[in-house]
Order: sequence, then C-alpha cells, then structure tokens
Amino acid sequence: MTVHTGRHFLQIPGPTNVPDRVLRAMDMPTMDHRGPEFARLGHDVLAAIQRVFRTKQPVIIYPASGTGAWEAAIVNTLKPGDKVLMAETGQFAVLWRGIADKFKLDVDFLPGDWRHGADLEQIEAHLAADREHKIKAVMVVHNETSTGCVTHPLEVRQILDRVKHPALLMVDTISGLGSLEYEHDAWGIDVSVAGSQKGLMLPPGLGFNAVSEKALAAAKANPSMRSYWDWQDVIAINKVGTWPYTPATNLLFGLREAIAMLEEEGLDHVFARHKRHSAATRAAVKAWGLETQCQEQGAHSPALTAVVMPEGHDADNFRKIVLEHFDMSLGTGLNKIKGKAFRIGHIGHFNDLMLMGTLSGIEMGLDLAKVPHRSGGVQAAMEVLIGRDAVPMSKSKAAVG
Amino acid sequence: MTVHTGRHFLQIPGPTNVPDRVLRAMDMPTMDHRGPEFARLGHDVLAAIQRVFRTKQPVIIYPASGTGAWEAAIVNTLKPGDKVLMAETGQFAVLWRGIADKFKLDVDFLPGDWRHGADLEQIEAHLAADREHKIKAVMVVHNETSTGCVTHPLEVRQILDRVKHPALLMVDTISGLGSLEYEHDAWGIDVSVAGSQKGLMLPPGLGFNAVSEKALAAAKANPSMRSYWDWQDVIAINKVGTWPYTPATNLLFGLREAIAMLEEEGLDHVFARHKRHSAATRAAVKAWGLETQCQEQGAHSPALTAVVMPEGHDADNFRKIVLEHFDMSLGTGLNKIKGKAFRIGHIGHFNDLMLMGTLSGIEMGLDLAKVPHRSGGVQAAMEVLIGRDAVPMSKSKAAVG
Repeated sequence: MTVHTGRHFLQIPGPTNVPDRVLRAMDMPTMDHRGPEFARLGHDVLAAIQRVFRTKQPVIIYPASGTGAWEAAIVNTLKPGDKVLMAETGQFAVLWRGIADKFKLDVDFLPGDWRHGADLEQIEAHLAADREHKIKAVMVVHNETSTGCVTHPLEVRQILDRVKHPALLMVDTISGLGSLEYEHDAWGIDVSVAGSQKGLMLPPGLGFNAVSEKALAAAKANPSMRSYWDWQDVIAINKVGTWPYTPATNLLFGLREAIAMLEEEGLDHVFARHKRHSAATRAAVKAWGLETQCQEQGAHSPALTAVVMPEGHDADNFRKIVLEHFDMSLGTGLNKIKGKAFRIGHIGHFNDLMLMGTLSGIEMGLDLAKVPHRSGGVQAAMEVLIGRDAVPMSKSKAAVG
Repeated sequence: MTVHTGRHFLQIPGPTNVPDRVLRAMDMPTMDHRGPEFARLGHDVLAAIQRVFRTKQPVIIYPASGTGAWEAAIVNTLKPGDKVLMAETGQFAVLWRGIADKFKLDVDFLPGDWRHGADLEQIEAHLAADREHKIKAVMVVHNETSTGCVTHPLEVRQILDRVKHPALLMVDTISGLGSLEYEHDAWGIDVSVAGSQKGLMLPPGLGFNAVSEKALAAAKANPSMRSYWDWQDVIAINKVGTWPYTPATNLLFGLREAIAMLEEEGLDHVFARHKRHSAATRAAVKAWGLETQCQEQGAHSPALTAVVMPEGHDADNFRKIVLEHFDMSLGTGLNKIKGKAFRIGHIGHFNDLMLMGTLSGIEMGLDLAKVPHRSGGVQAAMEVLIGRDAVPMSKSKAAVG
C-alpha cells in the first residue's frame, strides 16, 4: 500500500486527472433517465458535445469505452468482406485493426515504424490505385497515444478529394478530442471516434461517434447485424433527450461540467496550452540528451510525449522507481516498444506547475535509476514556459470575465 | 475570474491543502450530535488528538479558529493584572499579545527582530530576576508562521526548571502541530494552542487546547469570567463523547480521517518529510542568491520558508505575477515585513513533486517579475531531494503494508 503524502501525479496519457469541479458535478444522486429533468441534461450534453467535435451532425454517446466506439464505427458502416485501408501508426492502430479483423473486414494495413504519423504517400498511392473503389473506408488514428505522433485528418481528407475516392474517412481521435484542434465537419470526417477519459477530463465510461450524412446513409444501407451500437436507434430517441437504453447518468453530469470548463477556457486556449506544454516537454527531453519516440517534425503530439530509453535501460524499471520515490504514474511502452519507451501525459486538466512537478520527477528519477542523461531538462522546460522565443504565454490562466 | 486549467497550487503556510480522503470523509450527512453514533466519533477524535499532541491529558476541541484557542488559553488560566512574559518572534506573537492586552494582562513583551526564534537568554534573565514569581505564564510561539523561525518549547521548559520558576508554559503550536515534533507531556507544556488548518490538513474551523494538570488547577482557581471557552464544562461532558454546545460535526469526521492519514504515514515520517522539503527549499533560495527571513541557524521552520525580496522589489507584486501566470498562491509578508518578504508553505498534504512545481513557479516568477536572482534554484532543490549528503529519502512514500 502506498501512503500518499500529497497529490498523486497521474501523468499517463489517459485516463487523465479529473477536475474537482467535474467530480463534484458527478457526486449527485442518480436521476430518472426517463424524467423531464434528465431530458434537459440529455439535450444539454448532446448540444455541447457537437460544439466540441465542431459538427452540426449527430454525435452518439455510448455507455462504453473507446474500444466500444471503435466497434460502433465499424458495425454501423461496414460489412464482412469490405476492404478498408488502415495505417500502422502504433499500438492503437493495431488494436483497431484487430477489431476490423474480428468483423471480417479485408484490411489493407500500411506498415509503419511507430515513429511517424500515417504514411500519407502510401495512402494516396493505394487510393489512386483503387480504381474500382473497393476500399470502403480509410481509418486513421489522429493522435497515436502509444507513440505521441499525430496524423492530420485534414490531409487524409485532401487525399481522398484529390484522387476523387468515395471511401468513408474514419478517424480515431480518442486522445485528440479536447486537446488538439479537431473539426469533424470542416475536415470532412465521416466517423469520428472518441472517449471520455482523455482531453474531456472525465473518468472512463463514455464512447462517442460523430457521424456525417454520408456515414449515416452508409449505415442505413448496411445489412450488418448490430443492436447496442446501432446509430439510428440512438439518434431517433435522442430527439427527446434520452437514450434507447440506460445512459451513464452521472458521467453525463460530469460531461456537461467538463465541456463548460473547456468552453470557459476557450477551446483555442485549451489547444494552445497543450502545445505549449508539449514544446516545454520536448525541450526537457532534448536537454536530457534523450530521444522522443516520435521522429516526425511537426507531428509531435500536444497531448503526450513518448521518450525512448537509452539502450540497456528498462523503461518499466525507471517508471517503477519514479512511482515509488515520487508517487507519479508515467505511461508504459506498449507492445513492441514495451520496456523501450515511457510516455509522459500532459493532457487534460493540467497547468505549468503540474508540468514542472512532472518533469522534475522524471529528471530525479533518471538520476535515481542511473539512466545516462544530462541534467538541465527542467531548466530548459522553464525557459520555454517563460521565454519570448517560445509559444507565447497562454492567456488561458488570466482574467476572462 | 480565474480559469483553473489544472490544480491550484495553494502554497500559503496555511490553511493548507486538504487531502481528497479528508474531503470525502467530511462529505457526509450531518449527524445527531447527541446520538450514540456521534459519541463513538467523539471518543475516537478525543483519543486521536491526544496521540498527536503526545499527551495523556485532556485536549479541548473548540468549534473556533486558532485565535479562539489563543483566547481560551488566556481566559481559563489568567486574570486581569496577571503578569506574563511573551517574546516578539513575529506577527503571530504580536497578535497573541494583542489578546493578552484585551484581557488586561500585564505583558512583558521581549523585543525581537522577526528573524530569530524567541530570545531565550532574555527569557531566562527575566524569569531569574522575578524572585517574587509575579510572572504567571511564559507564552511563546513554537513555529512563527510569519517568519519561518522555530522556538523550541523544550528549551523554554528547561529554563523554567533551571531557574525554578512556577509560571505556566503556554505554547502556540498552531502551525507546528502535525508538521514538526511536538511533545505536550514530555516537554512539560501547560497549555498548547493549535488549529485544524495547518499540519492537520483540515479546513479552518477547529481550535485546540491541550492542558496540563497544573494548568487545570490554575483554571479551577481562576475567577475570570468565561463561558464558551471554559475547559471544565467541555472536559466534563467529553467523558460521554460529546460537547456542551454544538460541535463542528463534519470537521470532526475530517479530523478522524486526517489523523488516520498522519498515523498511516507515521508521525516521525511526517516530520522528516517536512524537514526534507524545508532543506530543499532553502537550497533553492540560496541558489537564487536570496535570503531567508529566518536568520537563526537550526531554527528554520520545517513547515514554511519566508524569503526576503531584494531592495526595491515588492513581494506582493511578485506574488501577484505568480498567481496570474502560474495559478499559485504564496503567503504575503505580514505587518512590518509586508511587501518585503513572501512565504512558501511546504506544510501538510505535500510531496516532492508538489514542492518542485512550487519552486519552479517561484523561479519562473522571479524571472517574469524581473527580480534580480540567479537561476538554478530548482536544480539545487532536486539535488537535495535525491542527494546522498542531504536528509535521506523518506521511506514515507514507499510500501508500508
């Protein structure tokens, strides 16, 4: 048993820290989910989540994990044998592909080295070559949580338009939504997949699908068996502010409060804050003489930074030392980078001094674990946070009213 | 209105951060304070608080602030015209003296420069000179929250014994209890004064008097008018686990949980943790090239560090910049050091990474406020936290079960 003498530093890249305001909002008696008071809540959160996805289209809120929302995207729009194009950006792309396999899709999985975003040239080449339009969907991970590399969905949309390919564009923005720019409508996304436990600052338990008219039409024409995940049933009854089955009432209380917090700060400020913390973190990593897992300039995630351990040093041993000495949880390396990398979450309910505590714990942990590094990472991060040459100080912490 | 994008850093030297466990313990329906369930709570907290004061004597728990507990110490044991010896260690000594004046005590107030603990030589000289034993009480502040200087109560006890003076020894340990060693019985304290909002990690609202047999005898013989603060009434009804008037029920739920937390960590570990954070903080201050307000070697408070601003720089302007940029509250300079010093609380529910966030915010704030200083304070603090020459790593954060 660990004695917490102060606040635990939960610096995994999600589930993220839940703000006290959100905890208090959820700390309420459960409500009749068929009553008039619930309907108001239902309408509120359905409208609010559209603003976060930047869409006028329906957003389906499931009592589910992000994994459920992945499955929902597939079973609503695709049927066994359908060809889809996916890109191996990291472990979450691998996992989504695994679900596609279970539903007997014919997956064309573009290989990747887990250090870059999706290979856009390969995507373009495959789509251009597919003159018969056998590819029914292109499925990419926006913010690859296992590597800290971003694939910009708009660039994929531009490819589809350029080669005039009718495939649906499906985007997993589970760890992207609420921490980096996302435009469901303006970027022409057909299905967006998200979850509650990342940039939305909630406990896990809600999954989301935002859908385009084209995706809805595909769903209507799709004979695949489905029940729980069926968009149409949910959308129909959402009109009266409720759900076809029991919604996760208290998480919805929390969702309303969390979106209110994001909107009080202003989504642009939220995104600027994440970028600024990411830049400061990379400055620390560079000063330590370590490498980020993501090696693509301009694709570094604002939400997390994965750091490669020097050869011969185990990332999980380092994480254990950090947890024992400093009561901080860092993200483990997943699958093929297990033990080779650790991940720093700087996502969600987070500020400069939480970041500095985080980076100090890493710098001291590197020392205690005898991992070869230079000191000065914490100092370098502070210079980014106050420096004139860096991303300017966010106004998000100053007066707003 | 401030938008909190992450956790506020409440680094004033009290009221301190309240642990989530304590918040949850208080977040309960209020209880019948004359019922059997309450009596169990009453007995529990009365026994627990004795363990914290390290006393077998009664501890009176008031629904009151520390200021109320100061007054209670006076009105129970002293009457108008009684001579008392006090020492000007800082603003809290000045305030306690003000109450003594209101109750028409004849205060001998030993002057001090607010940069040292009580002048023990002067205390000894005054007591030795008082051959008629006109001095009825010596009243000192254990941990002077305005300056960060400690006066060791045991040394005052030893002086009283050495000169064979029968005066009562009264100690304000409002910001000492639960953060630095305190031994009500072993140190021969007659009246200890404390509050809930410092090392006890609770919101403000409870005041405490721990009393010796000698103090109780003095109270019985004391004709001063009193009602709310009367020890005897409280002690009498405490035997059945309740209070003569309405106790602050939910704060008592919190008190039970807070003491459980202190005892899970172990009081010795709690004290070692505070000392270690104080040493790291002083290393940072030294590296910045700044001065601590406390100038007495060996008297630096484990609970807080007051820092002197360089001439021509306003401490409150600096604090304002830190609050606006980093959402951190630092303590203001009080009374004669207003604007000249700021205070860093490293007391209560606190750990290494909260300290590093705190010190980073100060270092960046010094830069933004253009206060002359050297960088490297954060680095120096990390070296203390991991260094072999420093206070050894506390085991308090490691496995206990």
